[in-house]
Amino acid sequence: MSDENSFSLKELLLNDYNGQQDGDGVSGNRLAERLDAISKIGLTEDNGSNRPGFSHEEKQAKDLVAKWMEEAGLEVRHDGAGNVFGRLAGKQNDAKAIMSGSHVDSVPNGGHFDGVLGVLSALEVVEAWKETGYQPEKPFEVVIFSDEEGARFNGGLHGSEGMMGTGDINEKLELTDTNGLRFAEVLEDVGLSVEGYKASKRNLDELEMFVEVHIEQGKRLEKENLPCGIVTGIAGPSWIEFTFSGEAGHAGNTPMNDRNDALVAASEFIFETEKIPSQVSDSAVATIGKLHVKPNGVNVIPGEVKLYVDIRDIYLDSRDEVVNRVLALGDDIAKKHNIDVDHFVKMRVSPVPIAEETQQLLEKSFQDKGMSAYKLPSGAGHDAQIVGGKLPIAMLFTKSKDGLSHNPEEWSDLADCVQTVHVLKRFLENAQ
Amino acid sequence: MSDENSFSLKELLLNDYNGQQDGDGVSGNRLAERLDAISKIGLTEDNGSNRPGFSHEEKQAKDLVAKWMEEAGLEVRHDGAGNVFGRLAGKQNDAKAIMSGSHVDSVPNGGHFDGVLGVLSALEVVEAWKETGYQPEKPFEVVIFSDEEGARFNGGLHGSEGMMGTGDINEKLELTDTNGLRFAEVLEDVGLSVEGYKASKRNLDELEMFVEVHIEQGKRLEKENLPCGIVTGIAGPSWIEFTFSGEAGHAGNTPMNDRNDALVAASEFIFETEKIPSQVSDSAVATIGKLHVKPNGVNVIPGEVKLYVDIRDIYLDSRDEVVNRVLALGDDIAKKHNIDVDHFVKMRVSPVPIAEETQQLLEKSFQDKGMSAYKLPSGAGHDAQIVGGKLPIAMLFTKSKDGLSHNPEEWSDLADCVQTVHVLKRFLENAQ
Repeated sequence: MSDENSFSLKELLLNDYNGQQDGDGVSGNRLAERLDAISKIGLTEDNGSNRPGFSHEEKQAKDLVAKWMEEAGLEVRHDGAGNVFGRLAGKQNDAKAIMSGSHVDSVPNGGHFDGVLGVLSALEVVEAWKETGYQPEKPFEVVIFSDEEGARFNGGLHGSEGMMGTGDINEKLELTDTNGLRFAEVLEDVGLSVEGYKASKRNLDELEMFVEVHIEQGKRLEKENLPCGIVTGIAGPSWIEFTFSGEAGHAGNTPMNDRNDALVAASEFIFETEKIPSQVSDSAVATIGKLHVKPNGVNVIPGEVKLYVDIRDIYLDSRDEVVNRVLALGDDIAKKHNIDVDHFVKMRVSPVPIAEETQQLLEKSFQDKGMSAYKLPSGAGHDAQIVGGKLPIAMLFTKSKDGLSHNPEEWSDLADCVQTVHVLKRFLENAQ
Repeated sequence: MSDENSFSLKELLLNDYNGQQDGDGVSGNRLAERLDAISKIGLTEDNGSNRPGFSHEEKQAKDLVAKWMEEAGLEVRHDGAGNVFGRLAGKQNDAKAIMSGSHVDSVPNGGHFDGVLGVLSALEVVEAWKETGYQPEKPFEVVIFSDEEGARFNGGLHGSEGMMGTGDINEKLELTDTNGLRFAEVLEDVGLSVEGYKASKRNLDELEMFVEVHIEQGKRLEKENLPCGIVTGIAGPSWIEFTFSGEAGHAGNTPMNDRNDALVAASEFIFETEKIPSQVSDSAVATIGKLHVKPNGVNVIPGEVKLYVDIRDIYLDSRDEVVNRVLALGDDIAKKHNIDVDHFVKMRVSPVPIAEETQQLLEKSFQDKGMSAYKLPSGAGHDAQIVGGKLPIAMLFTKSKDGLSHNPEEWSDLADCVQTVHVLKRFLENAQ
């Protein structure tokens, strides 16, 4: 894989795929060819993906999928947020539509499955239906949402927010991308406009449900050795910035009993924070991933430590209970160490649980295919989280190798991708 | 002090000095004038000092002190390391000499007392003896050592090492300063040479003892409200780099019980390390001042934490006992958290204890002056540490405001400086 020209995602995918999962019109070969075609758009030196939201590369990928949609007989529509919809008429075409898809943008040096697999899985169901002559009762829409990753503005989900009419347009207009371009300029660069973006809000009465296929970006399915699983809810992250302020001093000339060491206090805080989530909920997590010491000299007692706690759960109550316990812990520890602590809640996104009846229908779909229905929470955010604020949603996760994502090494075996398409197809059929 | 031209260290020093400490030939006004004259060499925008080792500013300061030495009747000699010696003949001039002094170089934006006070205190004793017509039995030498701070090569003490013949000349020849100049080029820039440096090693049979006055760079004397104190030993630092290697992962998609979080492990290590010194020795300290998290993203479980432990004590046994306990702790904690740990001892300088009899003679000198004799360890390194490797040494610390040093805000009251000169003078007289 060191020679860029020789990189072929298709070859890699088909290398360990024997066609055994093909059937009912679902084709591993077609899925591999399409994943491969999109991988060539914005291919990086590391054989990763570079298709930032609202870039020409993202547009090129959308246009290619739109072409496939048309070839599959779908009615294609582009909205003012750059979202692409491919609609298959239902037998009862005035019924509410079921929608499935994801995104085709990537982080700067990302992988080839995150997002793209969700779009192509929905399209593969359409292809399979076409081959087997199946027409659903309800209309079905394949969707590509714009700029899910947010690599551009350090905050994404702009496409799904446009469709749902959520998100604050005035806040978006204040955004500046890494090249100094404003949100309006970025839209215009790919033929969109602020007016068009505002008009992308959809009449939600037209939609019954959204279902998204996505790679897991974790290792639970790998550990269980299962191709795919049922998402029980999408965790809402809360990010809290803590600043512990003690007193800097010379490491040699300050006795141990006369110190106000911000890092010693922060360390007890980190160590104790790790114990909190499991006391509150099985699915809650708390992570301190980012930390800065000031002045950060070998022979200087730390005067200040700034750190960030990322707290998530799929239930709002337990997520907020963890937040409250972590805040109280920060106060207790600062008091014990005789130093100051400040905190600032930087983000507090509501979790989106997935309805029990939807999960049951997914379970039935797994059983119909003779597959084991494993349930797991989603710790990461997805377009389904935005849609799920106002509409019923479902999510399927596909096994990720080593849990890696946002990385050229991101990988899902084709057999697992195809198995996921089968479950998605069955679920969509069961939902008629 | 915001207008650079108006900065006058002399005015600031005399502002709260009423002359009450003057006497026995010791003059606060002269000391203030000389501190002031040197402060003007390399004065920074922040009214700090910038006289790196082997710079033209350091040389200018040495030359000014050499002029004062000559005016005071001392025989001045410059050695090949740039060290300056001003010798006062003793009544028994072939007896071993007592030496006192320090350095006049500074860190890039340092203060006006670190080093300079030690040189000028020794010279002030000579001035006082001259005024009162006292001639010591033994020869007395005032010394200015070159490049104590090591701002230039990230490691100093080059002057005292030259005189003592310690330090590895081949290692020094490999050094490159911040401007890319080699050790030899830097010497040549101020009229020195590698050959001259090698020849600066002194016949140690000529010397009986070295005594250094220095600002405390800590807050113990300030807390005790004492002008000066007796140093019990100079701590030898050991710097150990630890790398805790766990596994990075998505903060949302990795359950708490499936993590190998390097920062959680490092935090327990930091928290437990803080408890070790007091279990081993009253004067031992351990500090974790510098720490880096990788990849350091809010939503990424830390895969690696690199940190540095600075361990010091004035006794080798107890310092090394703390080192050993910290190393064992690192192993235990890595095992407990199921992660890897590597360590690398970056520095292991031997502590230099100060002989009990020398401390007793200092104590007597305090008592002779009706002053309270408070003892404290030196956590920082000094030229006395290098000299103390082969010769008897003594050290006096002067009270530092807020313990600040290596900083334009560094401050010692003139009354405290003058009191220190009185104790030094008495000690030198008692040592005859």
